[in-house]
Order: sequence, then C-alpha cells, then structure tokens
Amino acid sequence: MFKTWEKLPAQSQLELDTFIAELRYNDDGLIPAIAQQHDTGEVLMMAWMNDRSIQETLNTGQVCYWSRSRQTYWRKGESSGHQQKLVSMRADCDGDTLLLLVDQKGPACHTNRRSCFFFEADQESVRVNSDVGSGL
Amino acid sequence: MFKTWEKLPAQSQLELDTFIAELRYNDDGLIPAIAQQHDTGEVLMMAWMNDRSIQETLNTGQVCYWSRSRQTYWRKGESSGHQQKLVSMRADCDGDTLLLLVDQKGPACHTNRRSCFFFEADQESVRVNSDVGSGL
Repeated sequence: MFKTWEKLPAQSQLELDTFIAELRYNDDGLIPAIAQQHDTGEVLMMAWMNDRSIQETLNTGQVCYWSRSRQTYWRKGESSGHQQKLVSMRADCDGDTLLLLVDQKGPACHTNRRSCFFFEADQESVRVNSDVGSGL
Repeated sequence: MFKTWEKLPAQSQLELDTFIAELRYNDDGLIPAIAQQHDTGEVLMMAWMNDRSIQETLNTGQVCYWSRSRQTYWRKGESSGHQQKLVSMRADCDGDTLLLLVDQKGPACHTNRRSCFFFEADQESVRVNSDVGSGL
C-alpha cells in the first residue's frame, strides 16, 4: 500500500485502522519509534511499538512502547514519572518507522540524562557529552 | 560494555574502533541510523548502517548507509545528487541506535519530499502533510 500512498498529494486522508494494519512491522510485530521533543527538536530516544501500543498512544495521548527486554507494554514515565505526552505521530514513506513529536517531562534516558544520544563520535574518538542525572 | 560506559561522566573519551565494534548490531550486522538536519532539527529519515559504513561516513564526512533492499552500500546522493554531509554522529545509551546530525542537500526522501515522515496520524485518520517533489 505504501507504494501507492506515497504518491498522494498533500491533505489526502487515509483511514487510521487500515494505516495501522498496513505499517511494516518486523518479524516480532514491532516498528521503531523515534521520540523528538516537539518544540526544541531534540531527538530524545528510540524505542519500539506494536499495533496495540500505537493505538493506545493515540487514544490516551501518553506514549506507550513495547519493551523488548521485559516483553511487556511500557508506559513511559509510569514508574519514573518522566512521562511523554504525544503531540503528533508521523510515519515515513515506506511505513517502517514512526516519528513521535512529544512533550517529555524531565529526562527521557534511564541514566537521567535528557536524551539517550549522549555518545558523540568523531574521526578519532568518542566523547560522553553529558553527565548522569543532568536531565533531572 | 554499554552498561559500564553509560555511567561515565561528561567529557570522558572512548577509543573509536572499540566503540564501533561494541555497538549492538542486529542479526544482519545492522544498526538503525536517524538522520536529522543539524540546524533546523527536522528529522529527515531513518536508514541502516553496518560497521564499515559507519567508518566510511566518519572518514569521508558523507553519509553512507547499507541498503537492505539492494544489499549494498548506499552513498546517499550518489545518483540523485541529494547528499548528506555529516556534521555529528551520536549513539544512544545502550548502543543500538545512531543519530546523525547532517546537512542535507535538497530532499532526503525518494519521493523528493524534504523529509520521509510525511504521514501524520491523529485519533481519527492519517493525513499526508506535503506534496511529492516539494523538497526540490
């Protein structure tokens, strides 16, 4: 379907349930979801969703992932309080990646840094760009 | 190693080759890489890299992915002219995702939209937010 849908002009509308069903999940039924702070543009983390967590996220406005390590739904911030409120959900041209524009309360990373992307590589080495706890 | 490295304070340095070797590739030897326009913050696309394309990207300053569909190196813009210049390469806390800050010439998407993330979902439907060719 995405080969057809990608040609649609701006403002075209698609039915939500069909769209969710046609997304290209991997063999485990999962699709990667990038979380970006909606106003600053900072990319915070990447995690995984399935069709039910996508539906729940749209319905509740609070981001729900699928935890691959714990094999269960992971309602971001449920234990830490560092919730992600959904501002906008997007999908890419071939339907195999989601982009979530969110409003992240406090740190997104389990190290309590604001963003998970704190390793910076250049041609010679890799540098840690922020301290544990700096997102609190 | 990432369980140890994630605790390092800001400005800590790691050896590049060790870091690239320790990244958590999937069963196909690939790691997802998010491309973000460095100055506007726009998330442009997500694609895949292997250890050699990471090394090449750092060495040349031009982003090189691994194409899963064509099973070959994919030097972004080689045929289209829409090159991605690397500004900064980052990795996340558990080393299974890369974030590339890039300077994208023209459209990043094969539909010639600027960004691949042109499907916008809400609770009721999905809307196309830009026209084919609008990134040219």
